[in-house]
Order: sequence, then C-alpha cells, then structure tokens
Amino acid sequence: MQLAMINDKIVAIDELEPVYLDRGTFFGDGVYEVVRSYNGKIFALEEHLQRFANSLSAIGIASVDMDQIRNRVQKAFDAAGISNAKIYFHITRGSAPRNHIFDASLKPNFFLTITELPDDKEEKTKGIAVSTYPDLRWKRCDIKSLNLLANVLARTDAAQKDCDEAILVDEGRLITEGAGSAFFAIFEVTLQTAPLTANILPSITRKYAIEAAKNIGLKVLEKLITQKQASIADELFIAVTTKNIVPVVKFDNKVIGNGMPGKYTTLIMQEFSSFTK
Amino acid sequence: MQLAMINDKIVAIDELEPVYLDRGTFFGDGVYEVVRSYNGKIFALEEHLQRFANSLSAIGIASVDMDQIRNRVQKAFDAAGISNAKIYFHITRGSAPRNHIFDASLKPNFFLTITELPDDKEEKTKGIAVSTYPDLRWKRCDIKSLNLLANVLARTDAAQKDCDEAILVDEGRLITEGAGSAFFAIFEVTLQTAPLTANILPSITRKYAIEAAKNIGLKVLEKLITQKQASIADELFIAVTTKNIVPVVKFDNKVIGNGMPGKYTTLIMQEFSSFTK
Repeated sequence: MQLAMINDKIVAIDELEPVYLDRGTFFGDGVYEVVRSYNGKIFALEEHLQRFANSLSAIGIASVDMDQIRNRVQKAFDAAGISNAKIYFHITRGSAPRNHIFDASLKPNFFLTITELPDDKEEKTKGIAVSTYPDLRWKRCDIKSLNLLANVLARTDAAQKDCDEAILVDEGRLITEGAGSAFFAIFEVTLQTAPLTANILPSITRKYAIEAAKNIGLKVLEKLITQKQASIADELFIAVTTKNIVPVVKFDNKVIGNGMPGKYTTLIMQEFSSFTK
Repeated sequence: MQLAMINDKIVAIDELEPVYLDRGTFFGDGVYEVVRSYNGKIFALEEHLQRFANSLSAIGIASVDMDQIRNRVQKAFDAAGISNAKIYFHITRGSAPRNHIFDASLKPNFFLTITELPDDKEEKTKGIAVSTYPDLRWKRCDIKSLNLLANVLARTDAAQKDCDEAILVDEGRLITEGAGSAFFAIFEVTLQTAPLTANILPSITRKYAIEAAKNIGLKVLEKLITQKQASIADELFIAVTTKNIVPVVKFDNKVIGNGMPGKYTTLIMQEFSSFTK
C-alpha cells in the first residue's frame, strides 16, 4: 500500500491532508511577497502585487487572479486591525504527490500571515552591524521564490557574528545585496547600489530609497560595489520593506564613518517617511 | 490580532497547525533523500543515510538521530509491503513563525512517502531523449536540499520538448548533471562524467555506475563534458536512484549512436543489476 509517514505516524497517502503534499515544501515551488502598513495603510501594495504577478509568471504559475489576492490581503489586514503590520503571503503551485513535472490544472495554495512589526527605533537611530557572506544563491534572484536556503545560511552566519544582516558577495568580490535587503553605499555626494541587471531582487524599497536620495540632491550610481569599497564608504545603509532605511555603522567589524548613522542616510530616512505618511 | 489566512480562510496564528509554519515551505530549509528497493530489499540504504547526515550537517540541522531515521524508513517500508518501492523522505528544520533566524531548539519535521515504482522497461530498452537547460541552481548542489525550483523549471522545459530529463549546462557550456540524475558519456572505451569537485550532488548511483563501468573494462575519466562533446558521444546515459542506468539516445534532438542503447551502456546496466540482486 502506498503510504506516508509524518514523524512516527504512518498514514495512507490518500488520507494525507493536501498541505503535506505542497510543492512549496518539496521544491520551494512558489513565490512570496512581504508588504507592510504604516499607521493603518498598506504601503506600495500595487507595486508589490505587480512584482508578485511577475514572479508567478516567471515560474509559470498561471491562473492566479490578482484581484482576488488584493482582496484577500485587504480582508486579512482589516480583520487583524494592526496599525503597523507585516503582511507575508505566498502562493505555491499546489499540492500533489511529489514529481518535478506538474499537472497544469493544479490549484495554487495561498498562505498569508499578519504580525505586528517590532519597534525599530534603536536600529534606525544607532544603526546596525553587518557581515559579509558568499552569495550562494541561484541565478534567478529577480524571482522572489521560496528557495531561500542560501539566505538562511547567510543570516545564520551573520547572527553568529552578532550582526543584523548578511551582505552577499559574489565570486568577484562584488556585493549583490543583503540576504533580505538591498544594499547602498554613499561616497561623497553619490549614492551607489547594484544595478537591477545584477542577480538581485527588484526591491521596491530600493526604488523609493533612490527616489529619496535624488530628492535630497544626491547623485545616484547603479553599479556593483566591491567589498573593499564598502568597507571604506562614507555611509552605508540597507533598505527593506519592513523597516525601509536602516543605517549600517559596522561592516565586517570595520566602523563606518564615525560609527553613527551618516548625515545623508538620515536625510534619506526623513525623506522616506514623507512617502509613507 | 496576529492572524493567518489559508486560501480564503482566516485563522488565528496560535491555532495554525504546525505544518503551515514549516520552514521547509518558507525557505526550503530542509534536506531529502530518495532510496529504492529491488525485490523487497532497500538498495544502498546506509550510503543514502550517510549522505542524508552530511546534508543535515551542512545546513546545521543537528540533533537528528540517524538510527531513528533508519528505523522509520524500515518500519514504513515493511508496512507498505511494496517489492519495488520508491522511498522519499525529508527533514525540515522545524515549524515556527517565519524568520530566517531560527531557534536552535526547534524540533525537526520528518516526512516520508512510499510509492510503487512504475515499470521502466521501455525507457531501459529503447532509451530516452534529453534536452539541455541552463544550470540556474545555487552553489551548494552537494547538499540535497529542498531548494529545487531550478530543477522544476528545467524538467518542465524538457517535458515541453517531449524529453524525459533536462541536462544542466553551466555558463561555460559544461554539463554539470541532470535535473534529477547524474550524466555520463562514453567515448571509445572511456566513460566520462563530471568530477565531484564540480557543483553536483555526490550521486550514489553514479558511484555504482563507475564501479560497473570499471568492472566491464572501461576507463573512467572524471572531467566535465562540454555540451558539444556530449552531442557527438558514442553513447550517453543517466544514472538515477529510482531506475539506476537509463540509456540516452537523443540529445537536444541529435540522435546518439544508432539511436538505440549503446553496447557499453547495456553492459553497464547488466553489471549494475548484479549489485541489486
């Protein structure tokens, strides 16, 4: 008899709940998004939904109704009643006995969580420490997929070094991005970050960070930053949906600037907050 | 209130079944193995368990008792009573609210399925067609992890071309391995395959295929094969746990040899069957 085993319990395969046969678990065959709200309003939801649609399309998950997704996100957000919420959602290709090849008629699985964002005042006022880690990820990091083991390993390494983020460095010693953030350096009056043609996620917070930098009069250079350059930058910061701009004051144990958030980073943070009002 | 949503259903996070918070789904944070039985006996179980232990160790999932895993596999196999069975099992780091960083005390989740292997006589006597696809995978393919989206995309492409396997080609036009198999070419009296120092899985079937090739008098060369070389090889085959040796008679639409399984491949298949008796 064909059967399954969950920890020590034997179950007939036909009686398994579909969640145990989720292709998200077998293959990481799904994509996700994270959005947040500021004071009761979800920020840049349409842009996140558009990127979500792009990710779904890139891995060939068709038949997802984006209006339905928007409605679910809004319905869950309204039900939660959390003012500053982190909203995570993913769609996997569906549940079926494990086989790389899938039936096009599979029904995608949707899953979402809403949690309250922790206070980030200390990180934003004092800055964070980051450490570098080899970029072991696959070659399609433009897709926001559930294949995140390389990111987990990088973040684990950073945590062991008492750092808050891992900055990923490719074989040419070039920085792609953070394990869960975009990465930026400021040299004099220029903001530099990896171009979207690199193997990185088209970060929505990155886009707004660039806009904020331009608004305060910085030049913007989209060009890969070397590990060495980063360590001698005037200022560093990361950009991430849940916290927008977070100053980086230590890079691989090297103090950046005077060890406090830089002046332009602070101005960019202020400018960013005008977007989220 | 912190909450979750499963398709259209809203659930309090505290009431979610742990399987919905499996890090296997959020991050592909787990590793797996596939073993098979021949005529009621599991083949090379100890080697698979050793590789499983290596994969677990490589991603830092500690505290897994391999004797317990062996007992579970054997217990499920005995309960199923399938003579020629495919046994799939994975362990994920555990279930917890989504966060890259994990608590070291998390309890790993074990999941297994046993299914009857389909008849593979036709594939083995007529051979299969394969097509190439870019190797988009991460840089730690020695770890048999659940991050398999690149493999799914490759296999999907192959299926659309009526091919049975995707052969992965890196940026230098060198073949690493199949999306779910090791890849071999025969040139005159030499069997060639990628070395284990390449970014490939240390395939157990590969090891036995090499042993079989030596037993029938072939030389063995562990060196990457170019895409062009493969297309003009005398013989090609793949090696995979569930089917051991499968002759390849078409490579990107180019007929290999006379379009039938080659003579050395056939001898290697025969020799392999002596291992599984």
